[in-house]
Amino acid sequence: MKATPQVLKGMRDFLPARMILRHWVIEQVRRVFERFGFEPLETPAIEYLEVLEGKNGAEADKLIYSFEDRGGRRVGLRYDLTVPLARVVAMYPELPKPFKRYQIGPVWRAERPQRGRYREFYQCDADIVGSPGMLADAEVVTVAYQALRQLGFTRFQILINNRKLIQAVGTRLAVPAERVPLLWRAIDKWEKIGPAGVRAELLESGFDPSTIDSLLGILDVPADTADTLSILSDRLGDIPLGAEGIRELKELLGYLDLLEVPADFTRVDPRMVRGLDYYTGPIFEIVVEEPRIGSISGGGRYDHLVGLLGPVEAPAVGISLGLERLIDVIDELGMAPAEVRSTVTEVLVTVFDRERLASSLAIAASLRAAGINTEVALETEKLGHQLRYAGRKNIPLAIIVGPDEEAAGVVIVRNMVTGQQERVERGALLGAIQEALDETAEAGLSAD
Amino acid sequence: MKATPQVLKGMRDFLPARMILRHWVIEQVRRVFERFGFEPLETPAIEYLEVLEGKNGAEADKLIYSFEDRGGRRVGLRYDLTVPLARVVAMYPELPKPFKRYQIGPVWRAERPQRGRYREFYQCDADIVGSPGMLADAEVVTVAYQALRQLGFTRFQILINNRKLIQAVGTRLAVPAERVPLLWRAIDKWEKIGPAGVRAELLESGFDPSTIDSLLGILDVPADTADTLSILSDRLGDIPLGAEGIRELKELLGYLDLLEVPADFTRVDPRMVRGLDYYTGPIFEIVVEEPRIGSISGGGRYDHLVGLLGPVEAPAVGISLGLERLIDVIDELGMAPAEVRSTVTEVLVTVFDRERLASSLAIAASLRAAGINTEVALETEKLGHQLRYAGRKNIPLAIIVGPDEEAAGVVIVRNMVTGQQERVERGALLGAIQEALDETAEAGLSAD
Repeated sequence: MKATPQVLKGMRDFLPARMILRHWVIEQVRRVFERFGFEPLETPAIEYLEVLEGKNGAEADKLIYSFEDRGGRRVGLRYDLTVPLARVVAMYPELPKPFKRYQIGPVWRAERPQRGRYREFYQCDADIVGSPGMLADAEVVTVAYQALRQLGFTRFQILINNRKLIQAVGTRLAVPAERVPLLWRAIDKWEKIGPAGVRAELLESGFDPSTIDSLLGILDVPADTADTLSILSDRLGDIPLGAEGIRELKELLGYLDLLEVPADFTRVDPRMVRGLDYYTGPIFEIVVEEPRIGSISGGGRYDHLVGLLGPVEAPAVGISLGLERLIDVIDELGMAPAEVRSTVTEVLVTVFDRERLASSLAIAASLRAAGINTEVALETEKLGHQLRYAGRKNIPLAIIVGPDEEAAGVVIVRNMVTGQQERVERGALLGAIQEALDETAEAGLSAD
Repeated sequence: MKATPQVLKGMRDFLPARMILRHWVIEQVRRVFERFGFEPLETPAIEYLEVLEGKNGAEADKLIYSFEDRGGRRVGLRYDLTVPLARVVAMYPELPKPFKRYQIGPVWRAERPQRGRYREFYQCDADIVGSPGMLADAEVVTVAYQALRQLGFTRFQILINNRKLIQAVGTRLAVPAERVPLLWRAIDKWEKIGPAGVRAELLESGFDPSTIDSLLGILDVPADTADTLSILSDRLGDIPLGAEGIRELKELLGYLDLLEVPADFTRVDPRMVRGLDYYTGPIFEIVVEEPRIGSISGGGRYDHLVGLLGPVEAPAVGISLGLERLIDVIDELGMAPAEVRSTVTEVLVTVFDRERLASSLAIAASLRAAGINTEVALETEKLGHQLRYAGRKNIPLAIIVGPDEEAAGVVIVRNMVTGQQERVERGALLGAIQEALDETAEAGLSAD
């Protein structure tokens, strides 16, 4: 060990500058969730393995970090935040419904690590349990929309589809239920490989050409037309599940309008599938177009998951924001406001010499009492060393109190960005510091 | 599974009311840490097992949740936040020193669960790496003091000792190094079993009576005297490590005075030992006396732990607050301020009927835009049902808009605590809501 201290691949340390940004992002999302009345929930990292397994599909089960605990129980680290929520709802039937909860926290997956894919990563989930109506679906879409706007994203698309439409297509084509997943796995790649690629893949899976033609015909809708729904209604409206799916999406879009989600942020996309087995109704995916980071959010209605975990069924709908990719891009593009600095410390009070330590500590105490994050130099080294520390840490202001200043009842306030210094009366220090902090924040803003 | 959804023993779900309180407590602690310039750090839950093992002693190693991951690596869930910090410092030598960091997060220990002891629990740690001086020790003690004051605790004792004094006692008594731990294990129980009990235990361990007499003589200091240090100086000051330990504690107490920690909150206690192997200098323990919850914080100087994990040594000192017991007592005694409600939602906007939904959603949007956490009733059920939901969730205010109110441009604001209703002009709604929220918070306060 001694030679090479290391973290596991796919796991990360978040050093202070990065943590401050993460914390800011999480606070923005949390504030939006709470604005809509979603309540915080936290569940343990470790769950009984039987709670985790068999919910997200066989591929997902392989990625669960599982082991036997010291009591011989088969346990695992949570794979997502949705299954623990369903377990909570099943365990506490007394929770008032609708139960609107959010959870922001890490999940673990034994994925092959690659750029942007981690083995420990945060999810931000907002779900509503106990409400079967489309207003609930519209609300989870709206909080995701608002969270992204709050974080500064202005160009993204909320793709909307309905599992019922997907089922209706299967019915129309008379594809046996067990072969439907093959169909959708190919469709899911439409954006990447185009209709010709989808056709090739389906031929290889043994579908006959006329079925494939019908499928592509049904799903070939203009990408951005306002009347996708009426086209789909023409093609699937005579099948009961198709009619129901279309009716639900119409209602959902109507609510999104009332909830002030602009229509040009949403798009009905019959080729959007989502991987998870447990969805039963509307499904959502959010693709950020500028900057071009792709899919960063997914969700949908899952009316049978709670029933898998306990004795009672409860309808549910939710959405999940992938925090890591959002933070990566907010960091790269400097999207956070200037007051999100790379250090929490606003002022370093230097210590001129041991005799001046009491003065420096008293100044620090008065700044802290006024709510200003303040460090005192811990080693009485040369002043240059102390100022260099402030510089390396990007602390915006330093205070210097030498014997002359102490005698005169003043301090020197040094702007660490410009190097400018000003003498300030002790009594006027708080105001001067506040003003100087505002200036450095503005300077940071204009430097971007 | 289906019959009995459950969590593992010693693990907990935090339902919303509890989570809101937890979040408030964590925010208070975080704010104090940042006020002193401690920076946030986050490390993964999973570490290489060789990082975790051999740092906290053999008993601790047995409690690590360990397993083989899918790549056959021996890994474990972190046991504390100190060892991961040391690993981070060893891995990133470029971090500016002193490196002042805090970390607030869960750790896992396969303990036998009992009241107040959990297998997953939060620690709140503040540490300073790279500063050998006693000002650093004083600062970590001060942040713990300030955090407890911030949380409303007014009666607690910060016990202070020094591992160097403990070693000096061993030297004085000529006890072989390998038998010193037996000595201290018995001393550690002094408060519980008294000097007679300590004597009995040491006799059983094979110490001879004259050694025991000398030991008890050295450690028998008045519990609350101001001159414990000078007594100890008389007894141990001729041994170099003893003199050094006393000098350090004098310096530490002097800094605590300058840092405005009142002297009646601190006590030098030569019988306070702390379990951890890695301490090398001053050690701390905080005992809350009112309410009587006992030890809730520990820490000390550990100058060799970083060197155990990497090629370079770095002096370090830190303190850890046990969050769970603090939250338990803050909850039981209702120590949180009244604005920490049991729900995040401040207003429920009811939906009178489907025709009034647009009105209700518009009102909700305007409240949210003004920063008020607002729910809209998701199901258009009878008004009584909707109000009962607000009551069960302790939402303080409800808004009702029927056809008459809609026509008159007014809404009804109902105080869910008193049942009182008032008609408010739409244009005056925001002000009325703010005022009513303040009232319900004050009412909550006076009801305590």
